[in-house]
Amino acid sequence: MYNIALFGAGRIGQVHAVNIANHKETTLYSVSDPYTVNAEALATKYGAKIQTIDEALSDPNVHGVLIASATDTHAELIELSAKAGKAIFCEKPVHLDLERVRDCLKIVDECNVPLFVGFNRRYDPQFRKVREQLSLGTIGKAESLLITSRDPSPPPAEYVKVSGGMFRDMTIHDFDMARFIMGEDPVSIYAQGSNLVDPAIGAAGDIDTAFIVMKFPSGAMATISNSRRSGYGYDQRIELHGENGLLRANNILEDAVEVWGEPGCVAAKPEHFFLQRYEKAYRAEWQHFVDVLSGKAQPECSGFDGEQALLMADKALESLLTGKEIAL
Amino acid sequence: MYNIALFGAGRIGQVHAVNIANHKETTLYSVSDPYTVNAEALATKYGAKIQTIDEALSDPNVHGVLIASATDTHAELIELSAKAGKAIFCEKPVHLDLERVRDCLKIVDECNVPLFVGFNRRYDPQFRKVREQLSLGTIGKAESLLITSRDPSPPPAEYVKVSGGMFRDMTIHDFDMARFIMGEDPVSIYAQGSNLVDPAIGAAGDIDTAFIVMKFPSGAMATISNSRRSGYGYDQRIELHGENGLLRANNILEDAVEVWGEPGCVAAKPEHFFLQRYEKAYRAEWQHFVDVLSGKAQPECSGFDGEQALLMADKALESLLTGKEIAL
Amino acid sequence: MYNIALFGAGRIGQVHAVNIANHKETTLYSVSDPYTVNAEALATKYGAKIQTIDEALSDPNVHGVLIASATDTHAELIELSAKAGKAIFCEKPVHLDLERVRDCLKIVDECNVPLFVGFNRRYDPQFRKVREQLSLGTIGKAESLLITSRDPSPPPAEYVKVSGGMFRDMTIHDFDMARFIMGEDPVSIYAQGSNLVDPAIGAAGDIDTAFIVMKFPSGAMATISNSRRSGYGYDQRIELHGENGLLRANNILEDAVEVWGEPGCVAAKPEHFFLQRYEKAYRAEWQHFVDVLSGKAQPECSGFDGEQALLMADKALESLLTGKEIAL
Amino acid sequence: MYNIALFGAGRIGQVHAVNIANHKETTLYSVSDPYTVNAEALATKYGAKIQTIDEALSDPNVHGVLIASATDTHAELIELSAKAGKAIFCEKPVHLDLERVRDCLKIVDECNVPLFVGFNRRYDPQFRKVREQLSLGTIGKAESLLITSRDPSPPPAEYVKVSGGMFRDMTIHDFDMARFIMGEDPVSIYAQGSNLVDPAIGAAGDIDTAFIVMKFPSGAMATISNSRRSGYGYDQRIELHGENGLLRANNILEDAVEVWGEPGCVAAKPEHFFLQRYEKAYRAEWQHFVDVLSGKAQPECSGFDGEQALLMADKALESLLTGKEIAL
Repeated sequence: MYNIALFGAGRIGQVHAVNIANHKETTLYSVSDPYTVNAEALATKYGAKIQTIDEALSDPNVHGVLIASATDTHAELIELSAKAGKAIFCEKPVHLDLERVRDCLKIVDECNVPLFVGFNRRYDPQFRKVREQLSLGTIGKAESLLITSRDPSPPPAEYVKVSGGMFRDMTIHDFDMARFIMGEDPVSIYAQGSNLVDPAIGAAGDIDTAFIVMKFPSGAMATISNSRRSGYGYDQRIELHGENGLLRANNILEDAVEVWGEPGCVAAKPEHFFLQRYEKAYRAEWQHFVDVLSGKAQPECSGFDGEQALLMADKALESLLTGKEIAL
Repeated sequence: MYNIALFGAGRIGQVHAVNIANHKETTLYSVSDPYTVNAEALATKYGAKIQTIDEALSDPNVHGVLIASATDTHAELIELSAKAGKAIFCEKPVHLDLERVRDCLKIVDECNVPLFVGFNRRYDPQFRKVREQLSLGTIGKAESLLITSRDPSPPPAEYVKVSGGMFRDMTIHDFDMARFIMGEDPVSIYAQGSNLVDPAIGAAGDIDTAFIVMKFPSGAMATISNSRRSGYGYDQRIELHGENGLLRANNILEDAVEVWGEPGCVAAKPEHFFLQRYEKAYRAEWQHFVDVLSGKAQPECSGFDGEQALLMADKALESLLTGKEIAL
Repeated sequence: MYNIALFGAGRIGQVHAVNIANHKETTLYSVSDPYTVNAEALATKYGAKIQTIDEALSDPNVHGVLIASATDTHAELIELSAKAGKAIFCEKPVHLDLERVRDCLKIVDECNVPLFVGFNRRYDPQFRKVREQLSLGTIGKAESLLITSRDPSPPPAEYVKVSGGMFRDMTIHDFDMARFIMGEDPVSIYAQGSNLVDPAIGAAGDIDTAFIVMKFPSGAMATISNSRRSGYGYDQRIELHGENGLLRANNILEDAVEVWGEPGCVAAKPEHFFLQRYEKAYRAEWQHFVDVLSGKAQPECSGFDGEQALLMADKALESLLTGKEIAL
Repeated sequence: MYNIALFGAGRIGQVHAVNIANHKETTLYSVSDPYTVNAEALATKYGAKIQTIDEALSDPNVHGVLIASATDTHAELIELSAKAGKAIFCEKPVHLDLERVRDCLKIVDECNVPLFVGFNRRYDPQFRKVREQLSLGTIGKAESLLITSRDPSPPPAEYVKVSGGMFRDMTIHDFDMARFIMGEDPVSIYAQGSNLVDPAIGAAGDIDTAFIVMKFPSGAMATISNSRRSGYGYDQRIELHGENGLLRANNILEDAVEVWGEPGCVAAKPEHFFLQRYEKAYRAEWQHFVDVLSGKAQPECSGFDGEQALLMADKALESLLTGKEIAL
């Protein structure tokens, strides 16, 4: 049984807490959050301790940490945890600044602790099946990848201001997905974007709608279509065209009931947002981290993966600002 | 926290054990099974005691029992549990003999304990939505109900021999579903059947393929299409036609990935069997039973419901044997 | 080039007129209709003559006749045409009275002219593919057939009164479809019905909603689900379950555009009614009749097929009235 | 009745010949083709004359011409026809050279004859419905357009060499579609491409796989995904995301039959290629041209539209070669 210290008891921390507590090989050992109401609620619910970061990191009973705190604390908490010799599960991103990420990963490396970066979508059974079928040769060599990723509704402008911008905050998942599916890093990137959804986002200096095009060494290409709003729930789809056909991961709908009547044949909307859509993915990535803890696996999604996705976000932003395709 | 004694640690007992153990208001307190290997495996996994039926029923710490033992023990265990004053969750059916069911329910009545009969499909979110949408008036009055229920592959002939026959063993779920959706009891029933899937089933005196037609007091009608084999997984669908349209509960597919290529556009098969398809239903029915335990609810699916479904099975068999529509 | 005399210039006559005129091997030579407005409109549109029945039948330039007149005239027109030595395409049914049908077919037989009975749905590419795939062994032996056939809205009660009743008027298509798909004649039939759609239909002594169950010599079974109303267009579907899987002919939708939004993911309704849905079928059956005219084919759908479908309708009615399964 | 002279009796000329001949207001009056076998076949089939271009243009009985000859003859034939005062239907493109197009359109303008450029996809009922629903406000303002356009298999390299390249030959349809749907002209364009399908295409200096991104004055964006090969038929889809939802035009499948079995739930492939997929579109655009002939309509798709689509193709090529977003 592995004891886990959870840093951050907000929305995403709560998602992980359930999975830590329900997994038969892990215990939610302690919770740290400066917002003590959240920390206490989780601690009570799962019979965990309240600890400070320092207490958790110096507690020999803690085998691993899960960092689900505010983004700007990730890098420092990774470094502290690495120095304390703890196995680390960190929510994406490592940091919004690429240099800071690299410095942080150097320390992780020196401390020789496992670091898993939580790109949860890699563990979605649909996307994973696409990748597996590609590996099995079902459609031959990959040629064109289309990633559709649209949120149900935009975040508050306050959030946008500290988010690092749409590419580093939202598209970063899709950059990682492109690398995950294609199994190679792009050689060029182009981005186009607009502020169409909420003027407050534009006022905060960001965009809310984007298309990105990438080219890979094999000649294959990928495009990402992003929006901060969909009008019909969380739109998370992938199409991968290959030599012999297409692999297509559709949305997961809220239910399987149709209503046929005067307005047409009405099916349910896609699952509303990430908590519903990626419920299985969160559980599966936790299983993977347990395998890391037990030495059965190396982190499939490493600090380097976090760094590469951020690099793509930076270069996409450079492309957006210059109107040029950027080499990688 | 309610302590639950589980009677029966086989396949279906294991399904319930997970849900009992995972529910925050219930504990898997003890397990009873004459096949001690199964009982011990479950007890170890969830930190439960091993108890005999007698021990469990005389243990004041036991608040409720879940009867998941062999079908022919259900009625007796219900009676013993009722006399011991325990709240009862019993897997369907109460018994294969209607008179025996009626006697048993009298005792439950006299003992004034809650009895929930586990027609799990009522808790499937798809079918429940059909019923809710009907109540909301989405399609107006119900007119025609079509229930499709096909198993992925036939059971062994040994099982068939003690099953009470296809109508009492398999179709009984669909009879209950028809009552659940329509909200009324049929006035007539007609059944036609064949032995097409496995000659051993015919040799055991049973059928494996059937169509049933029912008429309801409102004039609405229902048909059930059954087979012990599908060739493509577990086929569990409902169509309800009303004055203004159709409510249609489709199968849940194994995943949302399609492969488009030379053979066509290939989607995944339906979830393989009841453990996968009705996972959410098993959890939801347990939640309902917890509400019964806490006094928040009366059993939605009672002994009377179990009796009615069995009556329909008996009358369907009479119709099959006589070639006549049977009045109810 | 074959010259065709069209008897009947109403709705269905107009459908055939287009196909006769557009086919490169046939000419719409003349039109007969006691309602001269319709006759003249068609004659003008396609450059055809106006003829009386007698004129057409005695005109040596007429190679074939298409009977699309009122139902009660079919049998007599068939007989007259047969005696005149014309090849005959007759809209279903031959007659509503089985004895009358048999007498009529005897005369056709004696005159040795080809008679094609227009069960148009046999030429629908979807249903034909189901049959072909069955023949190819795609799903192994046929076990259960489900035919769904629902009109968009009920006919006027005046029509119902002279229609011969729902089974002879509407279900007759489905009876023929069951024979066409299964390739065998049923040994028993059971029917259940209600008057739910329009009280005027009940007042006219008819039903508007029905379920029929048939059993075939092979042990396979079929069910038909009928309604005079759907609320979402013309519902024409088939499911054929076999040893190894399912062949499923879905509705043809009005278009392939979906709207995803707050109400869900909305697809188009099925094609509204038979003129739209079976447009290709009407063309294909005409091509078959041209093959009959040119001696390349014998009528695939003969007077005997018309007789058998009517027999099934009669027996279904007997079942409905007696509450018994009727042997065939 | 309008008499039409058809220039070009090859594959696409044959498509139009059927529609001209079948339309009740038009006659296929004459056919011109240097390859006389084709010309004679069509003339015989539809009872048309054989004429030279000169004969047709000087024949006062000819009311309109349909130019379906080799691409490099279009501009000259348009000019000759315009000078002869004939109404002109010209297959896309007007010419592969933008200057030549502009010169040609000037002459059309001076001659004051109607010129319709056959971007057939505008008449596809699916895409037209997308545009209409956008106009009706169903999804609010347009934000992101995704056009998927993939051929079933690549053309011969010989064809590629004279095609003007993928953007001018294939993508030009998608450029026009983007303008048609969005109702505005783009302000910038970016293109990325690869040679993945057939090395002979690369050897001919062309690409066979591409992504294009455009931005419009409103801030809305569009992407086009192209390939010369799909492995599953002709892939022609559109997604238009707006403020409140999504309009999605799916492929038209070859039929509506599914096969459920061990490999999954298999639906038919998309219609194989443009002759099948756009059959209705070809008929509808001919109806529009008849409306132009009769003075009821101005050409909805004019020489200017042809020019703009070619301009976009040229700029896309410039982007591909320079790796830069090109302003328009």
